[in-house]
Amino acid sequence: MEQEALYRLSRSLQKWILEAAAYTRTQIKQPLTVSTKSGPNDLVTNVDCANQAFLAEKIKTAYPNAQLVGEEGAGEVPDDWQQGLTFFIDPIDGTMNFVKQRANFAIMIGVYEDGQPLFGIIYDVMADQLFWGGPQLGIFENEAALKNAVDEPLQEGLICVNTRMLVTNEAHLQEVLYQCSGVRIYGSAGITFAHLLKGQVQAYISKLAPWDIAAGRVLAETLGFQVLQFDGQPISMMRKEGMIIAPKQAIQEIVTIMNGSND
Amino acid sequence: MEQEALYRLSRSLQKWILEAAAYTRTQIKQPLTVSTKSGPNDLVTNVDCANQAFLAEKIKTAYPNAQLVGEEGAGEVPDDWQQGLTFFIDPIDGTMNFVKQRANFAIMIGVYEDGQPLFGIIYDVMADQLFWGGPQLGIFENEAALKNAVDEPLQEGLICVNTRMLVTNEAHLQEVLYQCSGVRIYGSAGITFAHLLKGQVQAYISKLAPWDIAAGRVLAETLGFQVLQFDGQPISMMRKEGMIIAPKQAIQEIVTIMNGSND
Repeated sequence: MEQEALYRLSRSLQKWILEAAAYTRTQIKQPLTVSTKSGPNDLVTNVDCANQAFLAEKIKTAYPNAQLVGEEGAGEVPDDWQQGLTFFIDPIDGTMNFVKQRANFAIMIGVYEDGQPLFGIIYDVMADQLFWGGPQLGIFENEAALKNAVDEPLQEGLICVNTRMLVTNEAHLQEVLYQCSGVRIYGSAGITFAHLLKGQVQAYISKLAPWDIAAGRVLAETLGFQVLQFDGQPISMMRKEGMIIAPKQAIQEIVTIMNGSND
Repeated sequence: MEQEALYRLSRSLQKWILEAAAYTRTQIKQPLTVSTKSGPNDLVTNVDCANQAFLAEKIKTAYPNAQLVGEEGAGEVPDDWQQGLTFFIDPIDGTMNFVKQRANFAIMIGVYEDGQPLFGIIYDVMADQLFWGGPQLGIFENEAALKNAVDEPLQEGLICVNTRMLVTNEAHLQEVLYQCSGVRIYGSAGITFAHLLKGQVQAYISKLAPWDIAAGRVLAETLGFQVLQFDGQPISMMRKEGMIIAPKQAIQEIVTIMNGSND
């Protein structure tokens, strides 16, 4: 995409996300309409749906030829998503936190052009922290440029994990835990990416849907993090899949442990 | 304690903690001197020690007959701690977060008179959130009074846990997990208490030293939380011990599960 068009896309997405966030804040003290999806802890609220509709409408008007993938509705990733412009929308990431904490949730949009990362934006609504940028723009927290990931051994870092994977020791995850400085669980991919991008945690190991990873992948890869499946292969962005996000040294150590080379 | 003396104690502790926090913030971008204590993930820094010395000196000068128990130095709880005034000091709670995240740590002081909760104060230094009060004063976040704990079933709430207990399924902790809305791990007792007091998590299950629990216990009990050992007995405040902090309904459910009535 031409630089001028990319600046316009960046400005537009920031504006629309801030508008969705302003609406979300007006709802934060109201009763929510909460429904379950795949299970009792997989929630969707009226605000998720309203944000999805608002953001989808803005994007479709400005980019009528683009493809949209969203957590709430239009959830299938089209086979030809790697052609042209594709927007992945997560209108409320961390819906359980939104419902129970009324904080620690994010609105996220990731944009890909011909399958390549173009632009990502994650907004921690209640903390008013906006993470945005891409390979051509650099990565920013509000107006401050963020530093590249620190490439340290696994033992130097904190890791964020999926609770169920940790409890069941899926893919040797408990062995990863014993090699690092500790585990944190924040309950939202977007909030976890905020900690990664600020250098507060080193790695994130979880199962993420395309809308959970799309924005964070653009931001993290631009800062030098890698995003790989548990077996070390590239992720597909086509389905919910296990993945590791970490800088080079740590991700190599994690892939080795998760593939049980000690078996 | 007389009301006027209690107000003076409250004002003094707030002032001293804010002074220690101002010093801590000056050190946040400096290299730290980090040492290990019981193991590689049990850290102490020069700032922990400086804050401990500063707070202990202020308290000793103002309350020369009081007993002091602190995480860094003077760590033994005296057998006669239930006589007169006792101050429990945690100069940096969440030292791993302090070192790795430079955020998400707290300074905490709990004050007991003849063994009874008198005053508690927890300061989330980087978020500038001060939680303080006691049974005679009420409980506040900065200047706003906090609401009582919501007494809901376990399934309605998020719980915070000790990672190692969760991984090893100590005291059936994984069964507690499967009965609640989800797990969060923040890496600091003080930060966890901040979430409890704001109503963002329902329960906290961990092994806590006297200086980890002293302030939070005063604040949480005043808001209607209970603090019990895993077997449902009162805690001792004499040693590091397993404990549950939750409102009445949830703590009854948790005690039942942790004592394996289903075995």
